[in-house]
Amino acid sequence: MLEKAMENVRKETPLVHNITNYVTVNDVANAILACGASPIMSDEPQDVSDITSICGGLNINIGTLNERSIEAMFVAGKRAKELDHIVLLDPVGAGASKLRTDTATRIMNEIKPDIIRGNISEIKTLALGSGTTKGVDADIADSVTEGNLSDMISFAKAFSKRTNAVIAITGAIDLVADSDKCYVIRNGVLEMSRITGTGCQLSGIATAYAVANKDDITNAVAAAVCVMGLAGEIGFANLKENEGNSTLRNRIIDAICNMDEESLTKGAKYELR
Amino acid sequence: MLEKAMENVRKETPLVHNITNYVTVNDVANAILACGASPIMSDEPQDVSDITSICGGLNINIGTLNERSIEAMFVAGKRAKELDHIVLLDPVGAGASKLRTDTATRIMNEIKPDIIRGNISEIKTLALGSGTTKGVDADIADSVTEGNLSDMISFAKAFSKRTNAVIAITGAIDLVADSDKCYVIRNGVLEMSRITGTGCQLSGIATAYAVANKDDITNAVAAAVCVMGLAGEIGFANLKENEGNSTLRNRIIDAICNMDEESLTKGAKYELR
Amino acid sequence: MLEKAMENVRKETPLVHNITNYVTVNDVANAILACGASPIMSDEPQDVSDITSICGGLNINIGTLNERSIEAMFVAGKRAKELDHIVLLDPVGAGASKLRTDTATRIMNEIKPDIIRGNISEIKTLALGSGTTKGVDADIADSVTEGNLSDMISFAKAFSKRTNAVIAITGAIDLVADSDKCYVIRNGVLEMSRITGTGCQLSGIATAYAVANKDDITNAVAAAVCVMGLAGEIGFANLKENEGNSTLRNRIIDAICNMDEESLTKGAKYELR
Repeated sequence: MLEKAMENVRKETPLVHNITNYVTVNDVANAILACGASPIMSDEPQDVSDITSICGGLNINIGTLNERSIEAMFVAGKRAKELDHIVLLDPVGAGASKLRTDTATRIMNEIKPDIIRGNISEIKTLALGSGTTKGVDADIADSVTEGNLSDMISFAKAFSKRTNAVIAITGAIDLVADSDKCYVIRNGVLEMSRITGTGCQLSGIATAYAVANKDDITNAVAAAVCVMGLAGEIGFANLKENEGNSTLRNRIIDAICNMDEESLTKGAKYELR
Repeated sequence: MLEKAMENVRKETPLVHNITNYVTVNDVANAILACGASPIMSDEPQDVSDITSICGGLNINIGTLNERSIEAMFVAGKRAKELDHIVLLDPVGAGASKLRTDTATRIMNEIKPDIIRGNISEIKTLALGSGTTKGVDADIADSVTEGNLSDMISFAKAFSKRTNAVIAITGAIDLVADSDKCYVIRNGVLEMSRITGTGCQLSGIATAYAVANKDDITNAVAAAVCVMGLAGEIGFANLKENEGNSTLRNRIIDAICNMDEESLTKGAKYELR
Repeated sequence: MLEKAMENVRKETPLVHNITNYVTVNDVANAILACGASPIMSDEPQDVSDITSICGGLNINIGTLNERSIEAMFVAGKRAKELDHIVLLDPVGAGASKLRTDTATRIMNEIKPDIIRGNISEIKTLALGSGTTKGVDADIADSVTEGNLSDMISFAKAFSKRTNAVIAITGAIDLVADSDKCYVIRNGVLEMSRITGTGCQLSGIATAYAVANKDDITNAVAAAVCVMGLAGEIGFANLKENEGNSTLRNRIIDAICNMDEESLTKGAKYELR
């Protein structure tokens, strides 16, 4: 099922509109290209309605939100939903500031995204109105572990049921849930946390995967999570002597670019619960 | 002639003011440095007049335009023209939204840039008020091919005559035209389309080349197009096992950095029509 | 002393709030991660007070300042000082435009940063109201040389005394001064000037070092300058055939990531004056 999702992305090369932060935007664009899709960025309220109309999906990332881009998120989000496009929300730093929490909550409630992808602290903030964050990283107290896995799966399913969105919670263990089922994914390496932007890249890729696989969005997002985690493993394995986090960043995107369906099938580590 | 253009850039190290998108801005800066020039970025209306005054050229790229940056483009553009600086327009996504088409058209008509560089869809949009785009990429129906080459050369020359700007249309085959002559350039590799920003980088480099070669801007832009395409070929040839689009991005800028006049002369593939 | 500063950063993993330019922001984030700290970016006036409150330090870089981000710099700067956080000012391009000179001067006078880091032209502009710049690079006439070293050390100490800030002047020879002492640092390679952003990265790292070493900020900043310069040397030494400025950028951040206390102690080249 994962490899079929990959095949569809490469066949359809979906165009993804990104309203995203300026920290990792270049990596998001190159990661979307690497996975076989095509990115466009626009965050001016007067521009986004036209731009999102020609795309198949919209990736909203609040990482460096501002008054103008927030307005653009709502304009684009409403238009994208009218057109039945895929909308993904990446609530970067929800819980770390009132503006981020409020904006992410409003997008969740008013735009009703098809997918919400964040770390556990951000998702807890949206789901429970609480949850602690350490800046844009999840607080350790919040992490998904083997010990609390059943509870976290139930939490993700319940939040999906309430929002009618596929919920992707990423960290050492990744969860991708709808109201009925949850993919528990164990790909990735710890070293990915030494690079900025793997989460942002994943949100872009997940949007592309969902656009090309609208009949099973949960599976599509799970496939994107496996691609990203597996790319982290491959990129890390490909590091040469003296190479560190900056080269790892490149090698991960390279791995997304070079991954084929067979290596995804072989490398994906997930169970369905 | 191309190698003389390169020599002049490295001798003069022109300072280029860039009002450009935040997606590829870092690559634009490093590509300008790689080619031997020096970049500065500023897009605040209150700042750009001073900044452009100390530069030799202005590179206007509308890739992530917003209300503020559009104002800055006009302030800087007018000031640059008053000072007889080189102005280049990169109409990213013209045709994909009304705001982009209108802004690019107004800059073309009111600022009168010395150079307009885009893909064929963007240039057609400016020239004909039509032309289809697929986001920020050219629509396949619009491409310059061996079959329509004569017509496209005539089109580029006529558009140059009307605008009094050097017209650079880049794609699988690149055209650089003034009203009298057209360079047809066949450098580059297909894999460059798997990276974001090679077009933006080229616009930055072309501005630098024109600043250092004001006596023959057409030749200067053609040289820049050859440098970029040849760097794509070299960068791709330098890819090692398991490397993909992200590393290709680095290797292309590296190739710009390491290219000398001899390798440009030997590697440039162009004819004059 | 330098290695102790490094150890403290890695033990505390300080969170650094960056209001910085969009040209080099990704490299700043990855460099901060590489040195063992954690970055967060926010430049919306309504967001920055909350964000800076959860951090330990604030890095203000005016490289692509605009009306909104300038307001955010003051809101965040005042809040950070109230909370006794470390504030660093990087006056990119001060001297190149009135807006930059005025903004940097106002931040210096009203926020009273703990650290000011720039090239000699920028620092002279702040200290003397004059100084020439060539865009964002120091003018050659302004450089710190073996010939004028004593004078420059006195200048840096006097400026530190007047501002009560640690003054870091970086270039071929780097100076890090408080009112009593000055570190003269001779790490680094010329090729670092062919990449955009090593100065910006250093400002981010220096903020992190100061946060984790509040009892001796001068030493902390000197340590950060040595780390950056030494990383430049290591990164350059690690360049392979055909690699140029773009790969050098990655190899420098990699070197920051992989540097240990022993190699810092062995590689740092400084004298205390």
